[in-house]
Amino acid sequence: MKNFISVHDVNNIDALVQQALAYKANPFIDKALGQGKRIGCLFLNPSMRTRLSTQIAAQNLGMEAIVFNVGSEGWALEFEEEAIMSGNTVEHVKDAAPIFGKYFDILAIRTFPSLKNREDDYSELYIKQFIKYAGIPVVSLESATLHPLQSLTDIITIQEQLKQTPITGRKPKIVLSWAPHVKPLPQCVANSFAQWVNAWGQADFVITHPEDYELSEEFTKGATITTNQDEALAGADFVYVKNWSTFKDYGKIYESDPKWMLVNDKLKHTNNAKVMHCLPVRRNVELSDEILDGPNSLVTQEASNRVWAAQAVLNELLRANTK
Amino acid sequence: MKNFISVHDVNNIDALVQQALAYKANPFIDKALGQGKRIGCLFLNPSMRTRLSTQIAAQNLGMEAIVFNVGSEGWALEFEEEAIMSGNTVEHVKDAAPIFGKYFDILAIRTFPSLKNREDDYSELYIKQFIKYAGIPVVSLESATLHPLQSLTDIITIQEQLKQTPITGRKPKIVLSWAPHVKPLPQCVANSFAQWVNAWGQADFVITHPEDYELSEEFTKGATITTNQDEALAGADFVYVKNWSTFKDYGKIYESDPKWMLVNDKLKHTNNAKVMHCLPVRRNVELSDEILDGPNSLVTQEASNRVWAAQAVLNELLRANTK
Amino acid sequence: MKNFISVHDVNNIDALVQQALAYKANPFIDKALGQGKRIGCLFLNPSMRTRLSTQIAAQNLGMEAIVFNVGSEGWALEFEEEAIMSGNTVEHVKDAAPIFGKYFDILAIRTFPSLKNREDDYSELYIKQFIKYAGIPVVSLESATLHPLQSLTDIITIQEQLKQTPITGRKPKIVLSWAPHVKPLPQCVANSFAQWVNAWGQADFVITHPEDYELSEEFTKGATITTNQDEALAGADFVYVKNWSTFKDYGKIYESDPKWMLVNDKLKHTNNAKVMHCLPVRRNVELSDEILDGPNSLVTQEASNRVWAAQAVLNELLRANTK
Repeated sequence: MKNFISVHDVNNIDALVQQALAYKANPFIDKALGQGKRIGCLFLNPSMRTRLSTQIAAQNLGMEAIVFNVGSEGWALEFEEEAIMSGNTVEHVKDAAPIFGKYFDILAIRTFPSLKNREDDYSELYIKQFIKYAGIPVVSLESATLHPLQSLTDIITIQEQLKQTPITGRKPKIVLSWAPHVKPLPQCVANSFAQWVNAWGQADFVITHPEDYELSEEFTKGATITTNQDEALAGADFVYVKNWSTFKDYGKIYESDPKWMLVNDKLKHTNNAKVMHCLPVRRNVELSDEILDGPNSLVTQEASNRVWAAQAVLNELLRANTK
Repeated sequence: MKNFISVHDVNNIDALVQQALAYKANPFIDKALGQGKRIGCLFLNPSMRTRLSTQIAAQNLGMEAIVFNVGSEGWALEFEEEAIMSGNTVEHVKDAAPIFGKYFDILAIRTFPSLKNREDDYSELYIKQFIKYAGIPVVSLESATLHPLQSLTDIITIQEQLKQTPITGRKPKIVLSWAPHVKPLPQCVANSFAQWVNAWGQADFVITHPEDYELSEEFTKGATITTNQDEALAGADFVYVKNWSTFKDYGKIYESDPKWMLVNDKLKHTNNAKVMHCLPVRRNVELSDEILDGPNSLVTQEASNRVWAAQAVLNELLRANTK
Repeated sequence: MKNFISVHDVNNIDALVQQALAYKANPFIDKALGQGKRIGCLFLNPSMRTRLSTQIAAQNLGMEAIVFNVGSEGWALEFEEEAIMSGNTVEHVKDAAPIFGKYFDILAIRTFPSLKNREDDYSELYIKQFIKYAGIPVVSLESATLHPLQSLTDIITIQEQLKQTPITGRKPKIVLSWAPHVKPLPQCVANSFAQWVNAWGQADFVITHPEDYELSEEFTKGATITTNQDEALAGADFVYVKNWSTFKDYGKIYESDPKWMLVNDKLKHTNNAKVMHCLPVRRNVELSDEILDGPNSLVTQEASNRVWAAQAVLNELLRANTK
């Protein structure tokens, strides 16, 4: 593994999941691996679980983690090549990234999309520029279009659940279900979940959303897509709930019909489905209290697995890359 | 000790003070205790001494401390049960706290009062929700109504002083004296100091403030209360100076008569009283330069004891609670 | 070394440079030196390289580094003696600094000039007040008029280059060349570079800038000063590019003629000069892409040497000062 930006950086998803579960059982087993190594965690946008779990994962491996909030503790970076920097950006990624590459052994970055220009966001300019110029492994802490640490966590959590309650004779049915929200959100988590479940290939995968909320085929190809939520939920073993804004007419909210919120009544048509969400979740907008507080919710387990996902990824990067 | 929210969480104040003084003499004596343990320090409000001293105390015990500024690095939390989260809050404490509980061994939280609604503030909803949902020990880094780490520090500092200059044949006289300020401040430090001195029970305790600045009897009961500052100061061994806003007509400034500022002249009627303040202090508003820069001030010693207070508390929590 | 505020705190520049290069070759050679020691890094202003490199240097020495963003995580400090603090400042440095002195073994501070009042800025009140009241060694992470860690890095980088490509029979020619910028910047880096190159005394040192951009003679005395950039660049071995605002009519931008930007064409008259800049740099305003991306640029090497400069300074302070 050279970087960890999408599922394409992973050779063997199942092996990565097993490594994560090994760390969950024994967090400090590789405490010596990261001695004298340092990870820089750069936040161009806010973060809670990702921030904390990455720091903890690094510490579990004996690494030193240094967090830097680029905007508030530093200054605005420029990403465009050949920019004449007479505006608001203070430093070019071409100058900053190589220095991070000297200071750190691994660089982890969170950078959100603008949701204003689809082509720009989907070019993943920001994280690609960091990769181009840092000269060290780069880990996405969520980028403009994907959130791979979240998706790895999701696969880990699904596998844990399947180990506990095995499904035999058929693939588990996993449904990604759009949920209402009050603000236009990135497509990252949904894109990434679709990309990973498709790459994993061990599920009957259905995506359901209102009309006009189609995601990019780049990520969804292989899934069954329907605008009929009831139909999608029928017989589901896992329901992954998430809002996203429109992809085609980019970054908009077309409808936010509350009927798309998952409630207990809708679980009746499922196979007693476990409910997942990446958090943060708007309670009683995206998901009802009754679901989040009920026995079908996996959200806390899912979020706690973030540590082991990050630790498994850092482990691979440490082993594969030496300065 | 399950949590550290108020004096009621403490079995034996004197034992805790002795532990703190043992750490002051030998900071790293329990460096092995916290190995592999992690404290999360969550700041919903600004902090300097509390922030730094808690980090240092944790490191002295071999723990890893992770600081998270909830507002600026993350997002606004919701605390009301059954909230329909279509407003500005992004994540419910019911979802966030259990995850902190998975990531950390101890959770420390600073959360100020609104000073707008007394009932809400005095319900201590925020910190109680963290306790309810985190599932790990919670330490108050100052909450809506109390500041127990400060008060423990204050008792430590008083005991140090009494050890150095013993008072025999009578209890030391401790006076909590209201001071002017330019902004309405919480009652936390005053409430908490009163609560701890009363629980400690080894002082002649007097509270003095202008009319209309009565504190809640919940905390002051047991103390002598007077609006005559001169009378209060007569024969005092310790004067604890602090501003607070009104409790009854909640969160107001009724008067800010500069004559309430402590100056050297007022110390003449005391028993060469030592002067204490939790800091930050508005010089020449709350306390005069001459006092703060003079030989009677204990404020630096008091602030430096914050480390040992925090270390003694974390020690008890580590020993009493294992995951 | 008691503090590290300017070149005057250094006994032997060459020895400090050699120590830094020894750390570059072997970062963890003194990992035991800082065990149980703690550095507080206080930022009154934004920082990237300085912040990260100081944290890393401290960790390399086995110290614990605690970062505190004074403004955003704490509150505004007061620096004027005898202030009546009824305004916006919340805590006096007289009260804060002694506590930092108790919490930490070394205090590192970044504090920028106002650029509004020259006398105030050049009095270096802020950092001097920290030194006066902290009671522990103070390291400047850039103050109102100087940036000594940057200048030490610059001398290190020049010496590395001279070791690789020796110049014999004459002193190397070093040119400090003013560059255009969109905002009025402090004189710190230019002042400090001049001060250090003059104190080092092993160069033919020329400063060039447009009329009205004269720096303080306090720092430049010993250098040749000219407003003719071409003349200055002739035969140069090193060109240090930096913008600064006016010193006399303080803090202004008089002209920003783009012809002062260094481009490859201007390097023709030099001795294939290496180009230096402290970063952040406004590309195609201060320095052209072709220079920054070309073989003559030392900027990444220079910035990566920040770690070793800081480590050499912390080493001296740790060895010279014990609590």
